[in-house]
Amino acid sequence: MSELEIKKEVERQFEILKRGCEEIISEEEFKKKLENSIKNNKPLKIKLGIDPTGSELHIGHAVPLRKLKQFQDLGHEVNFLIGTFTARIGDPTGKSETRKMLSFETIQENIKTYLEQVKLILDLDKLKVVYNHNWLEKLTLEEMLKLLSMFTVSQMIQREDFSKRLSNNQPVSLIEFTYPILQGYDSVALEADVELGATEQKFNLLRGRDLQKNFNQEQQVCMIMPILVGLDGVEKMSKSLGNYISIKDTPTDMFGKIMSISDELMQNYYEMITNIPLEEVKDMLANHHPMECKKRLAFELVKEYYGEETAKESKLWFENVFSNKNLNVELPEVKFDENEMPALELLSRLKFISTNSEGRRLIDQGAVKVNDVQIKSINEVINLENGTIVRCGKKKIVKIVK
Amino acid sequence: MSELEIKKEVERQFEILKRGCEEIISEEEFKKKLENSIKNNKPLKIKLGIDPTGSELHIGHAVPLRKLKQFQDLGHEVNFLIGTFTARIGDPTGKSETRKMLSFETIQENIKTYLEQVKLILDLDKLKVVYNHNWLEKLTLEEMLKLLSMFTVSQMIQREDFSKRLSNNQPVSLIEFTYPILQGYDSVALEADVELGATEQKFNLLRGRDLQKNFNQEQQVCMIMPILVGLDGVEKMSKSLGNYISIKDTPTDMFGKIMSISDELMQNYYEMITNIPLEEVKDMLANHHPMECKKRLAFELVKEYYGEETAKESKLWFENVFSNKNLNVELPEVKFDENEMPALELLSRLKFISTNSEGRRLIDQGAVKVNDVQIKSINEVINLENGTIVRCGKKKIVKIVK
Repeated sequence: MSELEIKKEVERQFEILKRGCEEIISEEEFKKKLENSIKNNKPLKIKLGIDPTGSELHIGHAVPLRKLKQFQDLGHEVNFLIGTFTARIGDPTGKSETRKMLSFETIQENIKTYLEQVKLILDLDKLKVVYNHNWLEKLTLEEMLKLLSMFTVSQMIQREDFSKRLSNNQPVSLIEFTYPILQGYDSVALEADVELGATEQKFNLLRGRDLQKNFNQEQQVCMIMPILVGLDGVEKMSKSLGNYISIKDTPTDMFGKIMSISDELMQNYYEMITNIPLEEVKDMLANHHPMECKKRLAFELVKEYYGEETAKESKLWFENVFSNKNLNVELPEVKFDENEMPALELLSRLKFISTNSEGRRLIDQGAVKVNDVQIKSINEVINLENGTIVRCGKKKIVKIVK
Repeated sequence: MSELEIKKEVERQFEILKRGCEEIISEEEFKKKLENSIKNNKPLKIKLGIDPTGSELHIGHAVPLRKLKQFQDLGHEVNFLIGTFTARIGDPTGKSETRKMLSFETIQENIKTYLEQVKLILDLDKLKVVYNHNWLEKLTLEEMLKLLSMFTVSQMIQREDFSKRLSNNQPVSLIEFTYPILQGYDSVALEADVELGATEQKFNLLRGRDLQKNFNQEQQVCMIMPILVGLDGVEKMSKSLGNYISIKDTPTDMFGKIMSISDELMQNYYEMITNIPLEEVKDMLANHHPMECKKRLAFELVKEYYGEETAKESKLWFENVFSNKNLNVELPEVKFDENEMPALELLSRLKFISTNSEGRRLIDQGAVKVNDVQIKSINEVINLENGTIVRCGKKKIVKIVK
């Protein structure tokens, strides 16, 4: 390759990879690493660390995984680091309480579930799965103390969640100070070139740079990814807040959930969860009806997990149910033992509303229909016969079954 | 033994042992432990931890060692804990900077020198010398992390020197947080009943109690000893401040140094460095001339390290030289190559003065004599013939030799 071709290839890879990043520390070092990689035909070592503490991945978790896929497609070596050791410690990042240690059995179970889901996004054959207990278990107390000696208390306290909890007189266990250091040491053990992490991980990622320097290694580039906003457009996407799309959601659920987001959120979702060139996104949003743009977004998401055919079917399903009001399609079904129930209670049981006042408002607006008849009062008693169709607003619909 | 005899024996031991203690945490627990020990004829396990970082012991270091001797004499088991592992970490207690790690060779050399000196005070045959690398080296990273998880950042920051350094923006290395914990774990490993330490060690000693509780052991009693004041009566006794009496000082040096302390300091020294009953001390100080009381104190100190005969000789020597001005005794000798020297420079070279203005004042007061002739001017040139006797004030005298 000529110098010019190398330079062009660096720019090409850089443009693809920087998409959706909040910060790259540093862009200059990253370009330099890409250049060396291309020149010497030597893949970069990319690291993403995950604590196998949860089990269900949502499309927020998928954001960094998709970034790893881009690295894979560009020929780099992706290391999927399972924090088998560190999970036993628990990292409090972004949480207000010290996390409980996990048993080894739970960890193993979680890893299995994780990889089952990860393979929906990454090429598992090309993926290097590594477990940090392999080197951390071998670390002697003396080596650990040497690592600790490389950091000061003031440095640690700077981490936002630590300082916050300390000033609120909430306990921070000493073990939590070791987490960023052990995570940093993982980078030394792996000789990582790039580490990916969400915004809240920035502090920990930088400790990897500190330690690599102390161990006379080239410092890793830190690629900071923003945290995906949830469907509500306000909170971060999380299972506990219910504002998420699981990567195992059914195609129609995925489609419907995307259709429920606000118009404002679309731009961000296009950038974070699709590969459509940003120029094209900009044009589309400027020149097409929001409903059309949202359908395209939903289509792209379903396509990624289920393929183009299913994506087309989901789109058709959605249009039938919500635009054409054609109910001769498969609808989500909910089983009820009760034969009748007041309207407000029904909406709540169906999880169509999160507060009673929301239900009252929707009913007042005439947005709630049972078998296409508007419900007028929150106390109206609904007959729950088999096949009853309950609709709430434009995007929520179920069929009652006995 | 009858209940009454046991009770009396508890009181007897308690009275001997509490002498010179600043605080016992708690006195009640201590009496309970003594009672159990006497009842079951089972010696208490006493722990004193020492970092083998320095080499020359002074009578300030001897204070806790003398306390251990009392325990030995009462039949308890004294564990002299050498911090072979922790010395590699370095404890910043009372210091403003992170201490450097020591090499294993230096540590071994220091232990040798230590024990050589310790045997002047303790019965080495009855002493159990233990080294904490024996259990700390075996501690796995996971076990260490569990220990860390038992403490919070806020607890650690409460240690005075940590909080001071943090608020002065001086670095506190994370490794320093592990020191009190490892010291506490030593108590678990030893199953210590009592740990001795100076005031500045109180925080660390209490962590031993915390950990023993976590390990379901009976908590150790913490015996807090004050730090001995130096000869100047102001600063703590320390080699670097020069206000100390080495336990290897010559008998006449020991005697002379005690004679140089202020009258006010005597009571404290009697309590801390002799075994004379406190009632007797009180009587003596009330009814005798301070000079006599000081001679008795000096006599007791020399007697402890060199025996009664030598103590008598030292007393005689002191009286000859300073009271009777009889110089037909052995005097401290200083070798000089120079044949002459201005008076002020000579005083400085002999370390009789610490500043030039002090020298000027002493000469003005007529306190400096060479061969019994008063020196009148700081610039007077002194002839340094073999055998010249230089005297400064009432307690400093040397013989110049060639």
